[in-house]
Amino acid sequence: MMPEKLMEMRRATWKNQAAVPRPVILTIAGDSAAGKTTLTRGLVDALGAQNVTAVCADDYHRYDREERRALPFTPLNPACNYIDIMEQHLQLLAAGQPILKPKYDHATGTFGRPVFVEARRFIIVEGLLPLHTRLAQACADVSVFMDPPEPIRREWKIARDTTRRGYTSDQVIRELERREPESAEFIRPQRASADIVVRFGPLLEPTDGAWPHAHEDADSGTLSATLLLRPTVSHPDLSSVLTEENRRAIHMKLIRDDDGKPVDALHVHGQAPPQLTHQVEEALWRGLGLGHDAGMPSGLGAINGHRNEPLAITQLILVYHLLQLAAEH
Amino acid sequence: MMPEKLMEMRRATWKNQAAVPRPVILTIAGDSAAGKTTLTRGLVDALGAQNVTAVCADDYHRYDREERRALPFTPLNPACNYIDIMEQHLQLLAAGQPILKPKYDHATGTFGRPVFVEARRFIIVEGLLPLHTRLAQACADVSVFMDPPEPIRREWKIARDTTRRGYTSDQVIRELERREPESAEFIRPQRASADIVVRFGPLLEPTDGAWPHAHEDADSGTLSATLLLRPTVSHPDLSSVLTEENRRAIHMKLIRDDDGKPVDALHVHGQAPPQLTHQVEEALWRGLGLGHDAGMPSGLGAINGHRNEPLAITQLILVYHLLQLAAEH
Repeated sequence: MMPEKLMEMRRATWKNQAAVPRPVILTIAGDSAAGKTTLTRGLVDALGAQNVTAVCADDYHRYDREERRALPFTPLNPACNYIDIMEQHLQLLAAGQPILKPKYDHATGTFGRPVFVEARRFIIVEGLLPLHTRLAQACADVSVFMDPPEPIRREWKIARDTTRRGYTSDQVIRELERREPESAEFIRPQRASADIVVRFGPLLEPTDGAWPHAHEDADSGTLSATLLLRPTVSHPDLSSVLTEENRRAIHMKLIRDDDGKPVDALHVHGQAPPQLTHQVEEALWRGLGLGHDAGMPSGLGAINGHRNEPLAITQLILVYHLLQLAAEH
Repeated sequence: MMPEKLMEMRRATWKNQAAVPRPVILTIAGDSAAGKTTLTRGLVDALGAQNVTAVCADDYHRYDREERRALPFTPLNPACNYIDIMEQHLQLLAAGQPILKPKYDHATGTFGRPVFVEARRFIIVEGLLPLHTRLAQACADVSVFMDPPEPIRREWKIARDTTRRGYTSDQVIRELERREPESAEFIRPQRASADIVVRFGPLLEPTDGAWPHAHEDADSGTLSATLLLRPTVSHPDLSSVLTEENRRAIHMKLIRDDDGKPVDALHVHGQAPPQLTHQVEEALWRGLGLGHDAGMPSGLGAINGHRNEPLAITQLILVYHLLQLAAEH
């Protein structure tokens, strides 16, 4: 491009831009029914809906359901998505610009009218492939990979797709099998680039300092959470919370991840006494510096009409990151 | 934004970009039925469809037809359009990036599935408001405003909308009246920023060096063209064509525009002997340096199954600009 044209475009752009602080972007990647939406909901509640733009990265499908029937890949495949447009829109949002976002209707499997999306103070991007490319990763200020044990995720997906998306169990199970190779090839590798890996599930204590794996037959009612806190971002100082007294509710351990790399694993026990967990939450909430008067948002930890304390604590840690980044921006 | 995040995003962007030449953008603004599509068609034919991305700026409507019924403005009003998204998409195309363009269906008055649009070597943007803002203007390498006399445009609009869009004459006339204030307020001011103003119509010679105005009752069959060539871009050297011999087909005159500013007015006579006009076209075509062997594209000058020589000459001058700019980029 001619330098003077570039300059002209830049000058005209500056004129359009008010001096607003740039948004903070949290990106949550994970497979279908891995808990992304549930995690997001509590964050929006804590930050205030008016301050958050929630973007579903799965709207960038390249083909509708009918077209996909003739194609050899599932929606998990990057070739099935406008990854370049997703990257472009993430860059624009990161720069505080609005986007006209495509809209995929999961009920009909077709594309609807695009939606005008403004960049608010906080942007939460969630989807199957929002950390697939280096550019998409670079757009995130902090990133999460949802990593529930596969048996738990299958349960969640069957429960959701049969009750809310009109499929039969058999259909969902067949679809899970059909998707498995692309899940392994494209979804799970995103785990490696996330700042935080979140695993909800009935957890076994690690026996040899390794990443804990789930009982396949465990009761999924009172889920615990394990958060891998990678040294790629500055995590909150949890020393006041990680006391001997709180050990039954929360504790942290230096472990090696599956790839052998060292990482802090924060365990939050789902079956700890509620008053103990609540005490930990209060301490985390106070640590956010939002003032003593502000009560904790009621939406934290909400899941299917119940309250899950490990979920609430996970959300509080993410809120900490978002507020910290907003102060720095 | 944090500088390191910006750097990270930039580095990831560079990696994605091949060393392709940046596109050349021609923007054609003008009111409904002013001849934008007819002009564009011949250009696409001359440049080769595989080298041209045609973008309709009227797809950036903010409301569908049903919603507009309850609103006090017509589609001509910038408030009725996502001007900021149009600007954004023009910037992206200017930088060689693809866009996911909204698609407004004129037949149903609703929005369809967005369309993936790649930036080819030449981009022709046409619509009602593509030169409305400074940023949109800055995205154009060369810009045109279509300025037919209003009585001619009314004829064209009635003819098109009754035969191809299913309206009655009365409906079209009422719509023209309803749109007139916004046409004056938003469409016509774009004329001032265009590098070239194109007026097809039965023209009167200027009597006192002023911009010629049309006979309101003239026969619109053999249209002449007047092109205002503003000194904002380098126009082709026409001296070899502007001879005494060719004067009945083409001549140029220094005049004052309606705003008093000096401008070259190039007149191309619709009723000149065809062999004379054709000679002028051949000279212009040779001047483009596309080689002696390459015959002139047959699509130049095509309008409603006929051939109009002034239209062909207008298109040749625009092709000159586009090829010139492509060589410079």
